Amino acid sequence: MDDCLFCKIVAKEIPARVVREDETVLAFEDIRPQAPVHILIIPKEHFASLDDAGEDKEAILGRLLLAAAAVAREKGLARTGYRVVINTGPDSGQEVFHTHVHLLGGRKMRWPPG
Amino acid sequence: MDDCLFCKIVAKEIPARVVREDETVLAFEDIRPQAPVHILIIPKEHFASLDDAGEDKEAILGRLLLAAAAVAREKGLARTGYRVVINTGPDSGQEVFHTHVHLLGGRKMRWPPG
Repeated sequence: MDDCLFCKIVAKEIPARVVREDETVLAFEDIRPQAPVHILIIPKEHFASLDDAGEDKEAILGRLLLAAAAVAREKGLARTGYRVVINTGPDSGQEVFHTHVHLLGGRKMRWPPG
Repeated sequence: MDDCLFCKIVAKEIPARVVREDETVLAFEDIRPQAPVHILIIPKEHFASLDDAGEDKEAILGRLLLAAAAVAREKGLARTGYRVVINTGPDSGQEVFHTHVHLLGGRKMRWPPG
């Protein structure tokens, strides 16, 4: 997607603080962190949101969550805990329409989750 | 797990308002809703948290997110939007140690997510 911010980060056309990368997934620091640790985990393949994910996306969605857990372990959050958030559509505040998982930790998270 | 609340719901030993069920996943209303729509999506197989999910859990984790999106569509949230949240460990406020996905919608969600 030519005009997608996250596709440009995947293509290294826009810089990001990358913390993890493999064949299918990229993880980088959120530029507006809401917690001491706030990482975005995205699929390299473009799809706009969870609502656009067909059955064929099962494996990549699972991979995103496993990558979030792996980054959490690397960041020392496994014992203290962390929250994973996926926003979809207007009411959620989704701003970039390339599916992404927020990983937040390093502080107590409140309830409700926004 | 004999003493797990969500395993008892899967086994129908404890009642819940079930909104979706298939071979691997169960979805039911949260008893303390934080939004007009607040559904929990759980795997029927017990594992405590995202931090306990090994590589063999990729498919079931993907399935949980696809089920969340399917329930969101059924509840009329596809266009208005929704938030998916997974809590892991103490800082997140995880209360039941059987992996579960929160689906929240029907109102504007705030940022940060808790």
